[in-house]
Amino acid sequence: MRSILITEELSWIFVFPTVKLFGLRQLHWGTGFEGFVLTKHLGMALEPDQASVDSITLFVALLSSCIVIGHLLEKNRWFNESITALAIGLCTGIIILFTTEGRSSHILVFDEELFFIYLLPPIIFNAGFQVKKKQFFRNFVMIILFGAVGTLISFVIVSIGTMQLFKKLDIGFLDIGDYLEPGLMPIWLLPLLSLLALGAIFSATDSVCTLQVLNQDETPLLYSLVFGEGVVNDATSIVLFNAIQKFDLSHITPSIFMEFTGNFLYFFITSTLLGVGVGLISAYIIKKLYMGRHSTDREVALMILMAYLSYMMAELFSLSSILTVFFCGIVMSHYTWHNVTESSRITTKHAFATLSFISEIFIFLYVGMDALDIEKWKVVSESPGTSAGVSSILIGLVLVGRAASVFPLSFISNLFKRSESDRFTLKQQVTIWWAGLMRGSVSVALAYNQFTRSGHTQLRGNAIMITSTITVVLFSTVVFGLLTKPLIRLLLPSKNLSRTASSESFDPFPPKPMTDLPLIANGQTADAEVGRDNIPRPTSLRMLLATPANTVHYYWRKFDDSFMRPMFGGRGFAPIVPGSPTEPLLH
Amino acid sequence: MRSILITEELSWIFVFPTVKLFGLRQLHWGTGFEGFVLTKHLGMALEPDQASVDSITLFVALLSSCIVIGHLLEKNRWFNESITALAIGLCTGIIILFTTEGRSSHILVFDEELFFIYLLPPIIFNAGFQVKKKQFFRNFVMIILFGAVGTLISFVIVSIGTMQLFKKLDIGFLDIGDYLEPGLMPIWLLPLLSLLALGAIFSATDSVCTLQVLNQDETPLLYSLVFGEGVVNDATSIVLFNAIQKFDLSHITPSIFMEFTGNFLYFFITSTLLGVGVGLISAYIIKKLYMGRHSTDREVALMILMAYLSYMMAELFSLSSILTVFFCGIVMSHYTWHNVTESSRITTKHAFATLSFISEIFIFLYVGMDALDIEKWKVVSESPGTSAGVSSILIGLVLVGRAASVFPLSFISNLFKRSESDRFTLKQQVTIWWAGLMRGSVSVALAYNQFTRSGHTQLRGNAIMITSTITVVLFSTVVFGLLTKPLIRLLLPSKNLSRTASSESFDPFPPKPMTDLPLIANGQTADAEVGRDNIPRPTSLRMLLATPANTVHYYWRKFDDSFMRPMFGGRGFAPIVPGSPTEPLLH
Repeated sequence: MRSILITEELSWIFVFPTVKLFGLRQLHWGTGFEGFVLTKHLGMALEPDQASVDSITLFVALLSSCIVIGHLLEKNRWFNESITALAIGLCTGIIILFTTEGRSSHILVFDEELFFIYLLPPIIFNAGFQVKKKQFFRNFVMIILFGAVGTLISFVIVSIGTMQLFKKLDIGFLDIGDYLEPGLMPIWLLPLLSLLALGAIFSATDSVCTLQVLNQDETPLLYSLVFGEGVVNDATSIVLFNAIQKFDLSHITPSIFMEFTGNFLYFFITSTLLGVGVGLISAYIIKKLYMGRHSTDREVALMILMAYLSYMMAELFSLSSILTVFFCGIVMSHYTWHNVTESSRITTKHAFATLSFISEIFIFLYVGMDALDIEKWKVVSESPGTSAGVSSILIGLVLVGRAASVFPLSFISNLFKRSESDRFTLKQQVTIWWAGLMRGSVSVALAYNQFTRSGHTQLRGNAIMITSTITVVLFSTVVFGLLTKPLIRLLLPSKNLSRTASSESFDPFPPKPMTDLPLIANGQTADAEVGRDNIPRPTSLRMLLATPANTVHYYWRKFDDSFMRPMFGGRGFAPIVPGSPTEPLLH
Repeated sequence: MRSILITEELSWIFVFPTVKLFGLRQLHWGTGFEGFVLTKHLGMALEPDQASVDSITLFVALLSSCIVIGHLLEKNRWFNESITALAIGLCTGIIILFTTEGRSSHILVFDEELFFIYLLPPIIFNAGFQVKKKQFFRNFVMIILFGAVGTLISFVIVSIGTMQLFKKLDIGFLDIGDYLEPGLMPIWLLPLLSLLALGAIFSATDSVCTLQVLNQDETPLLYSLVFGEGVVNDATSIVLFNAIQKFDLSHITPSIFMEFTGNFLYFFITSTLLGVGVGLISAYIIKKLYMGRHSTDREVALMILMAYLSYMMAELFSLSSILTVFFCGIVMSHYTWHNVTESSRITTKHAFATLSFISEIFIFLYVGMDALDIEKWKVVSESPGTSAGVSSILIGLVLVGRAASVFPLSFISNLFKRSESDRFTLKQQVTIWWAGLMRGSVSVALAYNQFTRSGHTQLRGNAIMITSTITVVLFSTVVFGLLTKPLIRLLLPSKNLSRTASSESFDPFPPKPMTDLPLIANGQTADAEVGRDNIPRPTSLRMLLATPANTVHYYWRKFDDSFMRPMFGGRGFAPIVPGSPTEPLLH
């Protein structure tokens, strides 16, 4: 709280731009760097350390308290870590609001770069690293169907819905056009672009909340579908959003949709290949050099750096970094992870999960804190009806859009299922529908990207869009989130509802959670895993025989065993435990 | 390399300061934020993502290659990871220099905040976390003697030496005065302050290189002395440096040295207490809540966050954050670490070591890259003789200052040793002397802090000081560093010189390195440790009886066993393995 008082003194000063404004990525190209920055002294130029030290300290303290309070509320039927972090963020926001006498409620300006460069990569990488690969690939077609096609349906419905319904509201949408180089296209098209962007923003689901409640051992199909769909959905909506931002509406031709589809597929395939490539390189390096011989830390460091490198390279080449790092995570858990020492395996597994966990809490904490940003609400408060209307319309469209994708797709999917027990029941369909209702950090990040360019939140249309996004996110996370546990208990009554730790919800396939210590206790992680696979679970065996996708899976396994694993290591081909048995399920 | 070409276009634009310049810590106090930043467009305002993505990608790729090349060169007699990173940094600098046609050699401006807020904490925390606590506390008096008194002696000698020797060189020292609020003191005192600061800057040793070569099992006393001294030395020189910056020379009274000593002790004690306090709180929380029951990641996250919190709180209260986080690390490894689950122990131990490892490589990589910064050398190249003279004088003073502290202090220390074998031989004294000759990242960070305020490196005096610091760091790291292995082989011929992994050099006491897998193989880390302690090693037993410091140690152990461990957990009192035997050595 200290610097809030300290830095109140505002004075205009001249400083060189090389003064570390807030460090880290202050770039410095060329030497002719004589430009002056004319800025307000907001504790930045003379006391940069103090100001950022204050906010970092506060944030770290809040993150710690979120973990402790989240743990204490674990037994609670309604709460989960996301809601706890949101609530703590809101409370902190209120305190700051009072301390600064109503001038500000947050400490950090929401920064999409912070989000996309630092917070998102660990979350998505960890998702790939800990995903149950067999389930994921077995249901690959369905996951793509729900994740990509479902997102597109939702996108179309939200976009068309807003076009129809926003007409009656006076939002002042044209304000946002000033950064879009209006020369390129007719000015009347700009609102259209914003509405398309809204479609993409509100198609990004946040299934964390549902995954915390679903039990992957009792409903493996449902779990892997919701989980996989969430990842593909994130990637799809971000790709869609980027495509819309680059969309040139002035040259609409019949071929534009072909082109769009082509671009989309190109993005999808190249991003995946990049991730797979970097993952394989990391596996090859670690296998060949056998680093663990001398230093566990070197292995861990290399895995972390290579994973991050895949993400940054995708960013560099303007690919979908989410897909890249997701597939890099899958490849790393399939090959690299088996090439490192025992302690590196445990370390990487938990370190990645921990980083992801901290990032998630950070995001929810921030969204809670930012929800009270007075600047945006000031504009909105002049027309509370409009803002409430926009939020209600958006929530309604989210509900309808999700229904319009889930139920028809489930119907189509059921048509291709031979066995009755594999088909989605209505209750399961409702669960899938519910799992995609929450809107979270990706929506917020995209909304900020679209509507706060150059700090234009003072403009009415932008302010309404930002506050509506926050309202929808808060409402869906809190209200829908609170209802999730009771609802799923109602729909799938046999579920064990005590599983709430978000980190455990991403139950890994090879890296089994070790909170119960069996793997270390018997000393042989690899063997324990193989042992797990020895037991043919009825569901997976039946699925193996029933669906045609498993033929592909079978040939892949043969290729994997005869070429990939000898080359890149992996279970049974790791240099550390040579000769350990490979999975006998398919031999 | 791409953005180097992209961002060449320089144009003046107006942007809001809320535009994420480079994200992360862009603060935003209050709402009246209408100020304009008048800045050059250096790829910052319109393409912030692309520019920072480029540099982050390059840095991550370079870090990965440092690890791989460092591993490949491991067997080499001369090289170590620091020198490899320096060399790769230099090469990259040369490439960038050619690519930008001689305008710039680096990508990131050296930022003391990046250094002190992000890179230093993991290194120091890990040092505390992995230190051999018994050895450290047994030799505590000697470590303080060498670390604090030795640094003060070195500081006095470098300061006086520069005062005498710099008179003959035309350095233009008065230039630096303009930020020091000259009204407060006579203008002629300003150079004196800079020379005192130089004394502090060149008293900060970098013993990493020596530690990589010393073997702690063969020479435990020497190792713990060099290691502990290095940490205390870092803290002392930073405290000294900060004290000098706040020094008001216009009011020199006889009591000022008393006051200075009082402040120094106050810093030392409060910083230590803060670190111990936060460490104990973390132990208490984790013991009481028993988080591992549900989530390993929550424990790991809390440990990381609390450790960082201790550092940031010390920064907030203007204490010595290095000391704080060091003692927090010691307390965490003594109590907290024993309260978490098995997998959390392995994870934290390796995760902290890995973070420290990456930070170290990052720093050396950066120093290498920054060494070629053309802007500074341009000024210096007008008078190469002066710069060379300054560098030579500084290297000479470093050698003399270190000798003047090590040899007399060893003599005094030997006077108090009863047993002949405990006394330092001349060869050991030379080793200790040599261990403190390297100058590293702390020197660079302090020099940048002192001499680049407001980007004034164009001023002659500042440019000479910065380039001289870099020269001394490069020279001492490369030349002295390359000679370390052969020299120590000569002085202490029985040493096993194959141990070079920097991460392993901080061989932990409770967290034994697991690259050889014994702890996991037998499945019971805690038991294995207790087992290790059951074997009374002759050296420690003799020391236990010989020196008076061990009486304190004895009473501490009694207090620890009867009050602290039951309260805060720790070996034998952890909630996970209740009733496991405590250390029988002292019972």
